[in-house]
Amino acid sequence: MNLKITSCLAAFLLAGAYCYAQSNNNVVEDFKSSEVNQTGREYPMVNSEGRVRVQISAPNAKMVQLDIGAVKYDLVNNGEGVWTGESAPQDEGFHYYQLNIDGASVPDPGSLYFYGASRWGSGIEVPAHDKDFYAQKNVPHGQVREQIYFSETNKNLRRCFIYTPPGYDNDLGKRYPVLYLQHGGGENETGWSAQGKAGLIMDNLIAEGKAKSFIIVMDNGNWTMPRPPAGERPAPSARPGLPSGWADGFMKTLLNDIIPMVDANFRTISDQEHRAMAGLSMGGMQTHAITLANTDVFSQVGMFSGGSFSVEEVKNAPGFKENVKLVFISFGSHELDNRREGFGGNPEENTKALKADGMNAHFYVSPKTAHEWQSWRRSLYQFAQLLFK
Amino acid sequence: MNLKITSCLAAFLLAGAYCYAQSNNNVVEDFKSSEVNQTGREYPMVNSEGRVRVQISAPNAKMVQLDIGAVKYDLVNNGEGVWTGESAPQDEGFHYYQLNIDGASVPDPGSLYFYGASRWGSGIEVPAHDKDFYAQKNVPHGQVREQIYFSETNKNLRRCFIYTPPGYDNDLGKRYPVLYLQHGGGENETGWSAQGKAGLIMDNLIAEGKAKSFIIVMDNGNWTMPRPPAGERPAPSARPGLPSGWADGFMKTLLNDIIPMVDANFRTISDQEHRAMAGLSMGGMQTHAITLANTDVFSQVGMFSGGSFSVEEVKNAPGFKENVKLVFISFGSHELDNRREGFGGNPEENTKALKADGMNAHFYVSPKTAHEWQSWRRSLYQFAQLLFK
Repeated sequence: MNLKITSCLAAFLLAGAYCYAQSNNNVVEDFKSSEVNQTGREYPMVNSEGRVRVQISAPNAKMVQLDIGAVKYDLVNNGEGVWTGESAPQDEGFHYYQLNIDGASVPDPGSLYFYGASRWGSGIEVPAHDKDFYAQKNVPHGQVREQIYFSETNKNLRRCFIYTPPGYDNDLGKRYPVLYLQHGGGENETGWSAQGKAGLIMDNLIAEGKAKSFIIVMDNGNWTMPRPPAGERPAPSARPGLPSGWADGFMKTLLNDIIPMVDANFRTISDQEHRAMAGLSMGGMQTHAITLANTDVFSQVGMFSGGSFSVEEVKNAPGFKENVKLVFISFGSHELDNRREGFGGNPEENTKALKADGMNAHFYVSPKTAHEWQSWRRSLYQFAQLLFK
Repeated sequence: MNLKITSCLAAFLLAGAYCYAQSNNNVVEDFKSSEVNQTGREYPMVNSEGRVRVQISAPNAKMVQLDIGAVKYDLVNNGEGVWTGESAPQDEGFHYYQLNIDGASVPDPGSLYFYGASRWGSGIEVPAHDKDFYAQKNVPHGQVREQIYFSETNKNLRRCFIYTPPGYDNDLGKRYPVLYLQHGGGENETGWSAQGKAGLIMDNLIAEGKAKSFIIVMDNGNWTMPRPPAGERPAPSARPGLPSGWADGFMKTLLNDIIPMVDANFRTISDQEHRAMAGLSMGGMQTHAITLANTDVFSQVGMFSGGSFSVEEVKNAPGFKENVKLVFISFGSHELDNRREGFGGNPEENTKALKADGMNAHFYVSPKTAHEWQSWRRSLYQFAQLLFK
């Protein structure tokens, strides 16, 4: 294997095209159109190895590349201006990517677009062995509702998406628990429904009797704290022990605007026992800070690729141990391979220690995935089955 | 004026760059970022003349163009690979556009993306003098709900968006009329909410007491009729006199699946008197065919840039004159300039004749707009004020 790489490398140094052709010969030719292509588009495609193949007409371009997973792959011109090429195998699940045409980074006109990496751009779906749990099926479907509302805290109009479970509009006497579910950095309030498939995950779980019916609120957690005037210090944190910053800014809006708006307009059970918060990555870190500081507001907590709780933190957060009935910590396995001691200690050890200390604490690892949406889809799938039970 | 064009043309023939520079000198330098840019993006921009200016980094490109309104405008490289340029003045309102980089047609990474012209791609907003009627304001807001449902007619899962008016979730005893509102060719079920701003138009009208509260159902009207087996003729039309094709195919799904699904899951008043249909362009033509053939289903009809009803057609459609309480026909003024006699006769004369024949028929012309969304936003704004009164 090492020999092969070395000889390929040598060949590459001698003749740039060889290594590409070599690689091409090993590609399994069973490509199918991606499941998140625009209607009627053949490309991008994915094969059984998880390679992504793109194609674009750029008759006058000098160089076209596929940019995925932080690697740029050169495409090949067929001589008539149609450029084609593929990536190395990608992990199962959803990935952001883009094309690079003579130095311009642009979306692929064949794919649907998703908000992530701080831009609307291309996404691709590498079919996962467990994709059935978020497949669109002929089961009763809930709704994902776009709600515009005024924030008194920020004096502006904001938007969130709210999932209501199947049957919400039929049994008008029934009230529901609520999960506040946050996206990651560089993403927004559209992420959990679009690439996260939160609605489909819940519809399928409910149809199989594996999860309770609850409402999910997906808001925008991106936050820039106003800069203090020159020479002044930042405003103090809203709660002692909570760092001032994006968690603090979003916390005020969540507590003062979002939760009251949801409780006023949806048939919620509006108490701590029936209110949960979870988030991925940055949203997990926000969940961490906000739930530690508000043990009278949330009873169930999920952090997906966003750190963990140490016994020490829990000890210093009054009411947390007594009032919080569920702690769920998860990561993609590749994240743990890469930085087992990250996020303030070993998350698995932290979670075991909470459990040993008497809390209902769960640790989940998504197999063979990294800091990406397949880890978070699986995390929601696991977490939702534990919630409000 | 003619002289100026001629001299510019002559200059262009002598030296390609001159005409561009000439045009540039006349550009009013009051560009502002478009209202439908991605968060934090400066470009694309629009000035007070309605010119669209784009900018993109493409260090190795030979030619970059802005493609808008069926015209391609060359951008200029600043010498460091950043390309900038602008279009001629565009009409007020929303326009689809794209960039062309060395022959590749791609979305502009600065804009939000919309579905039209049979692709997800860039859109731009040229601020209109009357943009207040679809502005996002601090008024009570309805919801736009994504609903997945199974179609027995087509044996597949479909998606629609449903607008529920402000207060829908608060007064659970109230029932509402329903407008079925269709997009145009090359568009889909997202068009009326995103670029059409249907929800904001209704929220503002209801806040001002100018329109009744009603539900709006926005489904996907794109249709390809199954091909008959070789040697056989196409299946007969569902109703005598109605052409077989996309109107017919969508009609079956509308009548058999969509209306029953909406009546089962929303608090509708489920009778002909409280059910309307409207559409733009292809959606208007579908509305034409479907409402003529179903005078027991719809009582109020709107066609935006999608034809008109002749007295002869109405005479041949049993029950139409007696049962249909409102007919609304509209066009953009530039459409009428270009093809006054199109769409089966003169639509203004046709509508006047219906009115003279005793029907409640209205004709509206959107000033200084073409076959584009500003015409249709204004048409909905006018039509909604007449509905269910």
